[in-house]
Amino acid sequence: MLTKELERFIEEDMGSLPYEIVRDINARAAIVAKEDGVLSGMAEALQVFRYFSVEARALREDGQEIHSGDIVLDAEGSAGGILMAERLALNFLGRMSGIATLTAQCMKKAGKVIIAGTRKTTPGFRKFEKKAIIAGGGDPHRYSLTDAVMVKDNHIALRGLENAVKNAKKAGFTRKVEVEVESAEDALLASELGADIVMFDNMTPAEIARCISAVRKRYPHVIIEASGGITPENLSEYAAAGVDVISMGALTRDARWLDFSLEVTVLTGRG
Amino acid sequence: MLTKELERFIEEDMGSLPYEIVRDINARAAIVAKEDGVLSGMAEALQVFRYFSVEARALREDGQEIHSGDIVLDAEGSAGGILMAERLALNFLGRMSGIATLTAQCMKKAGKVIIAGTRKTTPGFRKFEKKAIIAGGGDPHRYSLTDAVMVKDNHIALRGLENAVKNAKKAGFTRKVEVEVESAEDALLASELGADIVMFDNMTPAEIARCISAVRKRYPHVIIEASGGITPENLSEYAAAGVDVISMGALTRDARWLDFSLEVTVLTGRG
Amino acid sequence: MLTKELERFIEEDMGSLPYEIVRDINARAAIVAKEDGVLSGMAEALQVFRYFSVEARALREDGQEIHSGDIVLDAEGSAGGILMAERLALNFLGRMSGIATLTAQCMKKAGKVIIAGTRKTTPGFRKFEKKAIIAGGGDPHRYSLTDAVMVKDNHIALRGLENAVKNAKKAGFTRKVEVEVESAEDALLASELGADIVMFDNMTPAEIARCISAVRKRYPHVIIEASGGITPENLSEYAAAGVDVISMGALTRDARWLDFSLEVTVLTGRG
Amino acid sequence: MLTKELERFIEEDMGSLPYEIVRDINARAAIVAKEDGVLSGMAEALQVFRYFSVEARALREDGQEIHSGDIVLDAEGSAGGILMAERLALNFLGRMSGIATLTAQCMKKAGKVIIAGTRKTTPGFRKFEKKAIIAGGGDPHRYSLTDAVMVKDNHIALRGLENAVKNAKKAGFTRKVEVEVESAEDALLASELGADIVMFDNMTPAEIARCISAVRKRYPHVIIEASGGITPENLSEYAAAGVDVISMGALTRDARWLDFSLEVTVLTGRG
Amino acid sequence: MLTKELERFIEEDMGSLPYEIVRDINARAAIVAKEDGVLSGMAEALQVFRYFSVEARALREDGQEIHSGDIVLDAEGSAGGILMAERLALNFLGRMSGIATLTAQCMKKAGKVIIAGTRKTTPGFRKFEKKAIIAGGGDPHRYSLTDAVMVKDNHIALRGLENAVKNAKKAGFTRKVEVEVESAEDALLASELGADIVMFDNMTPAEIARCISAVRKRYPHVIIEASGGITPENLSEYAAAGVDVISMGALTRDARWLDFSLEVTVLTGRG
Amino acid sequence: MLTKELERFIEEDMGSLPYEIVRDINARAAIVAKEDGVLSGMAEALQVFRYFSVEARALREDGQEIHSGDIVLDAEGSAGGILMAERLALNFLGRMSGIATLTAQCMKKAGKVIIAGTRKTTPGFRKFEKKAIIAGGGDPHRYSLTDAVMVKDNHIALRGLENAVKNAKKAGFTRKVEVEVESAEDALLASELGADIVMFDNMTPAEIARCISAVRKRYPHVIIEASGGITPENLSEYAAAGVDVISMGALTRDARWLDFSLEVTVLTGRG
Repeated sequence: MLTKELERFIEEDMGSLPYEIVRDINARAAIVAKEDGVLSGMAEALQVFRYFSVEARALREDGQEIHSGDIVLDAEGSAGGILMAERLALNFLGRMSGIATLTAQCMKKAGKVIIAGTRKTTPGFRKFEKKAIIAGGGDPHRYSLTDAVMVKDNHIALRGLENAVKNAKKAGFTRKVEVEVESAEDALLASELGADIVMFDNMTPAEIARCISAVRKRYPHVIIEASGGITPENLSEYAAAGVDVISMGALTRDARWLDFSLEVTVLTGRG
Repeated sequence: MLTKELERFIEEDMGSLPYEIVRDINARAAIVAKEDGVLSGMAEALQVFRYFSVEARALREDGQEIHSGDIVLDAEGSAGGILMAERLALNFLGRMSGIATLTAQCMKKAGKVIIAGTRKTTPGFRKFEKKAIIAGGGDPHRYSLTDAVMVKDNHIALRGLENAVKNAKKAGFTRKVEVEVESAEDALLASELGADIVMFDNMTPAEIARCISAVRKRYPHVIIEASGGITPENLSEYAAAGVDVISMGALTRDARWLDFSLEVTVLTGRG
Repeated sequence: MLTKELERFIEEDMGSLPYEIVRDINARAAIVAKEDGVLSGMAEALQVFRYFSVEARALREDGQEIHSGDIVLDAEGSAGGILMAERLALNFLGRMSGIATLTAQCMKKAGKVIIAGTRKTTPGFRKFEKKAIIAGGGDPHRYSLTDAVMVKDNHIALRGLENAVKNAKKAGFTRKVEVEVESAEDALLASELGADIVMFDNMTPAEIARCISAVRKRYPHVIIEASGGITPENLSEYAAAGVDVISMGALTRDARWLDFSLEVTVLTGRG
Repeated sequence: MLTKELERFIEEDMGSLPYEIVRDINARAAIVAKEDGVLSGMAEALQVFRYFSVEARALREDGQEIHSGDIVLDAEGSAGGILMAERLALNFLGRMSGIATLTAQCMKKAGKVIIAGTRKTTPGFRKFEKKAIIAGGGDPHRYSLTDAVMVKDNHIALRGLENAVKNAKKAGFTRKVEVEVESAEDALLASELGADIVMFDNMTPAEIARCISAVRKRYPHVIIEASGGITPENLSEYAAAGVDVISMGALTRDARWLDFSLEVTVLTGRG
Repeated sequence: MLTKELERFIEEDMGSLPYEIVRDINARAAIVAKEDGVLSGMAEALQVFRYFSVEARALREDGQEIHSGDIVLDAEGSAGGILMAERLALNFLGRMSGIATLTAQCMKKAGKVIIAGTRKTTPGFRKFEKKAIIAGGGDPHRYSLTDAVMVKDNHIALRGLENAVKNAKKAGFTRKVEVEVESAEDALLASELGADIVMFDNMTPAEIARCISAVRKRYPHVIIEASGGITPENLSEYAAAGVDVISMGALTRDARWLDFSLEVTVLTGRG
Repeated sequence: MLTKELERFIEEDMGSLPYEIVRDINARAAIVAKEDGVLSGMAEALQVFRYFSVEARALREDGQEIHSGDIVLDAEGSAGGILMAERLALNFLGRMSGIATLTAQCMKKAGKVIIAGTRKTTPGFRKFEKKAIIAGGGDPHRYSLTDAVMVKDNHIALRGLENAVKNAKKAGFTRKVEVEVESAEDALLASELGADIVMFDNMTPAEIARCISAVRKRYPHVIIEASGGITPENLSEYAAAGVDVISMGALTRDARWLDFSLEVTVLTGRG
């Protein structure tokens, strides 16, 4: 992450205290997983320690399965530096590994279907939440409105499907156009108008299954996505409906953090 | 929130697209709750709409109980402005109301005990997560290391309890000193050294109950807090142990988002 | 544009002088085109005036053809505000209209072929240069590395075409993959591997024409782009080769500014 | 340049992608000039590579004449780092060397007359464009309104020459006062009022020549500048008119970029 | 001041508390001078109140003499807004009026000699301290290294006077060159080399008086400045030595704040 | 301090000049105290030099007494780097040591009473001024409104003492509540309502002494502070009145800078 991003996070955690490393106690620290899961946030945690002049080393990699009791990172340096880094490093690992773990669980249920995120992310933390989805094996979906153009229910309510898709196609030939639909007719119309991705929104697996074959036959290049109300519980049914991608707000909205703790040992110096 | 914070969040959601409001379609929008819960994030949602020159009005207040189907905010203005505001406003409401709702649920189980947050918050979003805890009836606890001084397990491992507390007391007479302990002896020692708050960490309710009376008798001004492994499930037992405050990482780590959606209607303009 | 962007530009132009509007002289200002061309930068110019509490009004729109002598914007307010806004507003209009004008000239020569920009833009000013290309009728192409994934000569040199494209396809289903090629074989291979766009780089129109038909027949969905050494002079030949898109660094690298000046008249106040 | 400036430029080019260097492929890169010209932007290009932990070395210096085919910079490090640095480094070199080259061409035609820039610069990129003018042998002129005070046509229209100059003289004894004039009378009046620099605006070389001698005789310390409509084509005539300085918006408005490319070779690592 | 500057100051004073105006109590506030002095900081104080949606009005102007008991500003709006603005508005007025007052006192002792500031200013607050000097009737001197070029003792120690001045002259024809000297010989040499300002550093008034006449005779255009160890106490002697300008670090280093307080009255609302 | 803070200060001092270290002259520099005092700002000064790639070493520590003629810091590196660092490093040392020195003088007069700062600090520089107070042996008091809650005269005017204190107590159990009072009755009431600190504002030492005993007897845990109109001159009388803490705006409002200068010697290179 950029220095300015890192410093914004450090400032939030330290407040007005002037940051200043004094090398009076030399210590060693270990970050230990307290639960099983999938790791994410390692690059961020390392960067936090290094900012405070603490040498840190990854013992596990992003995307790897980890188990309760695993040491995932060890560090050595001034005790002051370690303690200033502790909470922020753990917050990155906890939030990001929580999302990676939930994503990986969904991926297992989804078979060959791609599991993707949404823009339902914590304000200011999206790029890290998207990165966690990737660590869990998922697809980040759009980072911002500048990426692929989506024609959503509210756009259609405002302009009608046809106008809305035609307008979206003008956004640039390098960007895909994705259209939310709620029927086979609209799916076919959107494809006809040049949609690259058709997304069935808030429909049952059975309804979606019925709509898919029509699209597949006529528009084999169109990617078919399902979204809306899909949870880890009902995910398998949507996967079985034959879609290519399932996007789930739940990956970022419902993910619990994974638990980590930092343990410190004195090496030298006045205690 | 400050303009610069708001613009950072807007930039994240819009990417490189130049923000520009064109007043071609005049529309009305309503944000509707899809679940029961406690509201938080209203001031932030209003500010997002107003940034895009959309008039917005709160129909419910932060801290209020809301029900599925309630319209919590309505807005009127250019359709472009409404659509640029939509996702960010919903993300504030969803994340913050989720935390407020979980906090309020915990408060109900806690009786007269205060439920407090921790520094286990999403990097860059802490002040909003603390505000959501307040909306849910809880206590924000420390915003940053500049607030009350905590002497935690790792500080004690490095310096010993006595040195660590004495050092903490030097941080300034306007700041409280809170000490993490794991026994009645340490609780008494910390109080003797001038701790304002003693926090029993990772202990069972029974163990805590045993330790409390000794402290209460000799140091009636000392506030007693429990933390570590406390969840909505076992919370009542900790509350019954006689503590003043229970701080729970779970408020921010385990909270699911509350579901809201935005519905839009055209007023005038070319569709 | 965001307040923070605008203020960064204002700070650059004003230096350390404290910005402070004193309403002693009320004046009127007109921005006049000194050359024929296509307008871009109007929204930005208006925003600059409004920041300094000067009322400003557009008399022409972005994308419109303008002629020498046309008044494109008029403004009224404190003379101090007008003079602080003048240079920055003119710099937006001059640079952006220059790009829009060159783009429009290229569009005329290109017939139905799309003219697109590149990432060869002035550091810190890309989004405005892309917006100017759109005003001139062109396509912005990628805003940043986060948009469509490009596999370029250096990627291929490092990993080989096949690995590079396979890797690019993993970047996410919402993003297009564009591959730079220098032969029909590579164009076919890239298409086979799932490229959405094939870009013929640094080839003659004749060579490109030869390669196109093979791709068109087998991969009708693939968009064909030409780039590398294409200038307003040789553009028609490339357009005639049958490509869909021509991307030209020249749009931003070779564009001269369009000339505008601001003329001011005193309304009231001590001179 | 400051870290915060560099990171703003990097963010523009990378978008939301988390920046993270992985050292899997070790590569060497060379930046090669594709045209003759004068170099500028080397310090900036080096800083971009170093930010991405790539070792980079200058083979030519700012201000030096370079020839098509010259390697101006070589670099060695992770392929990922090189590719993230490539476009931004090239954009600095291309834009800045283009300006330096045009400036140097003008300097040759100007004999002993100083060629200076103006405030007609790309918003947000001024200090680099001024630096490029210096590399080309020119004078940067004012960086911002805080530098030397200029009394321009619009100031005179608002307040009259005499009031405007008197007011400018109050801005501080450390700053020069420059006055735009269009006649010998005004030039003499401005000099009488204490102008340090008199600038003949939008006049023919013949008119300027006529005005100069009067000023020279009575105010030998006053620097005489010409500006307005001066291009590389008519520059020699203005130089011959006897002025000290010619300032040209054309240096930054009309400069084409100089062409550079980056070539990469694999050293080690999995391709 | 720019929004981003104002928000940085507000953030410093408010910490992590989310800023939010609630209009429950409507109040009136008056800022009262508690000492005699010269006012500065009014524009800044007004801007602070307005940021918090409080209507504020200046009753005195920057540069005006004020007396103990004078109400300099009154305001009306929500009590919450007034209390959030209070300390920051008072800090601007107190620090800036303190400098303006000391400057005005020095101006009185200086007769027709200009009193100027230095770069000895509080980091991050220079432009406001310079503005306060202007309010007190003084000259701001250089805002930054980009303004007039100074050749100081350390430059001369490094390069010798002649090289250092020649080098300074290359910085651009729009910038004055000021040279620190400690003898008549050096003053003459510097003038000969084209210095615009000669500054006698750390010399007695008698020594300076001796050096001046030589310079005046041969270089009547050169401005003569004295600096170094000049205080309000010995200032008159330096002024009598015949210099044009006296620059004093004391204006910003030794100025005490002027005392103001804010008094509030409830208008309406629940108390 | 954070990189972004340091760069803001550097930008203020350098203006638009592109920062670039050229290693042509290698020099040594010493910062020498010109007055006796207490040192503060050493960490900041070191950081400034290091930013410009100059090796710097502290010869004295923050909080230490220094004497006129002491070398407090020495540095070695490029002359350009040293000169760019000079003024900013000296400004930190001068302002911060001035505050530390005044604080230490007050501490000597105060016996065992704590001397504390206030929020009367230079906008944007508070955390460094608080740090200087600590270096002088004082207490920083609140950094911002987020720290301990103060109920001040204006809060009481708006809501009444009782409501105001009750409201303050809700701000969170980790924060102390301090109440400004002007009588023994109010001091007792505030203590009864749970104030942690009672502050006697603008009262004579005799009045304060009379009020203290009542509070001490009934509320021995309450900290007693005096403030308002306390200066180095009358400080001893307030200390003798029996308070625990004296807070003085004078520490930051009336502190003169301590004088330091930087002396440079050439090591190698062309002069």
